[in-house]
Amino acid sequence: MIRNMAQYTAPIQNLINALSRLPGIGLRSAERIAFHLLKLPPEEALKLAEAIRDAKTRIRHCSVCYNLSESDPCEICSDPQRDQTVVCVVEQPKDLLALESAGSYRGVYHVLLGRIAPLDGVEPGDLTISGLMDRLGRSTIREVIMGTNPTVEGDTTALYLQNEISKRFPDVQITRLARGIASGSSIEFANRNMLAEAIAGRQKV
Amino acid sequence: MIRNMAQYTAPIQNLINALSRLPGIGLRSAERIAFHLLKLPPEEALKLAEAIRDAKTRIRHCSVCYNLSESDPCEICSDPQRDQTVVCVVEQPKDLLALESAGSYRGVYHVLLGRIAPLDGVEPGDLTISGLMDRLGRSTIREVIMGTNPTVEGDTTALYLQNEISKRFPDVQITRLARGIASGSSIEFANRNMLAEAIAGRQKV
Repeated sequence: MIRNMAQYTAPIQNLINALSRLPGIGLRSAERIAFHLLKLPPEEALKLAEAIRDAKTRIRHCSVCYNLSESDPCEICSDPQRDQTVVCVVEQPKDLLALESAGSYRGVYHVLLGRIAPLDGVEPGDLTISGLMDRLGRSTIREVIMGTNPTVEGDTTALYLQNEISKRFPDVQITRLARGIASGSSIEFANRNMLAEAIAGRQKV
Repeated sequence: MIRNMAQYTAPIQNLINALSRLPGIGLRSAERIAFHLLKLPPEEALKLAEAIRDAKTRIRHCSVCYNLSESDPCEICSDPQRDQTVVCVVEQPKDLLALESAGSYRGVYHVLLGRIAPLDGVEPGDLTISGLMDRLGRSTIREVIMGTNPTVEGDTTALYLQNEISKRFPDVQITRLARGIASGSSIEFANRNMLAEAIAGRQKV
């Protein structure tokens, strides 16, 4: 569809432009959202503006584990009940949240803020790996759990970390999250990789 | 997919919630956009907050035609070069913008801010129809052009307006935008309605 040449009046056009820069929002969606915001009662629309401002001013990365947090160190890193000698490495804050919601992990985390993906231009130096190495150097961490995603890029990242850690900290134990059939799924619809890993990692009952 | 039970820290969760209330944005997209905003340099993210605030405080509906505008009456309604005796009725401000971009219309507009759609709960009273009737009553409008969309609901709205206007202002001429083959499209892919209207409205050359 050919775009209209005429422009909306400046404040509307600016809003559409700002919205269309968000991931997954095209020009048409941005337009729809802008008109929706213009239709809302002012206090409703300003809630979003306030939420953005609030999040940007109050949220930072924990200087220890790089999780997003209001406090530094974050609540998990400063919790005396958590086992500070076991570190689970994850790609993103949302992975940390998913693991926390399982409620069974009592160690701490390290958030890489990405995964090694040369095709997307993400090199090891773009992640928080040097922060992890610093932690391993200065504290008494005895185990690092690889909690990267079970994807090619997640596995590549885990492999890279395993090499780096075992070279520099040979006493640290390296483990990874168990793989196999997903609980609640069915074998019929499992893919070949899942089944191969389930067989290779079979457990005694 | 089962949603995580754990919640992000308040400012992040508030941002995700506010974003997920936008049209076409689900919880997953809201999460992605929130993390994108958190990653941006502050001035970039605050630009969006500012654009929302700016649009909400500076933009209002023109009290004459209901177009969105910074001034009241809007630029078109207060333009002495425009023919104030011809009014084109459109559903939304973006329809007005599309017609303006064609650059050939010199009359003024009336924006209904919707179309009659009983299934969506939109009744004539929800539109700016009484505003249009007031205009017809107090000024010297000689022609009203139906510029509603060529859809069932747009046509219903136009039909309703035609009845109302011809009852109360029998001297006002009522026209509608021409229909037929869309310029630049092909007959091969035109639907039956388009072709039927093109044949019924065939023009002398």
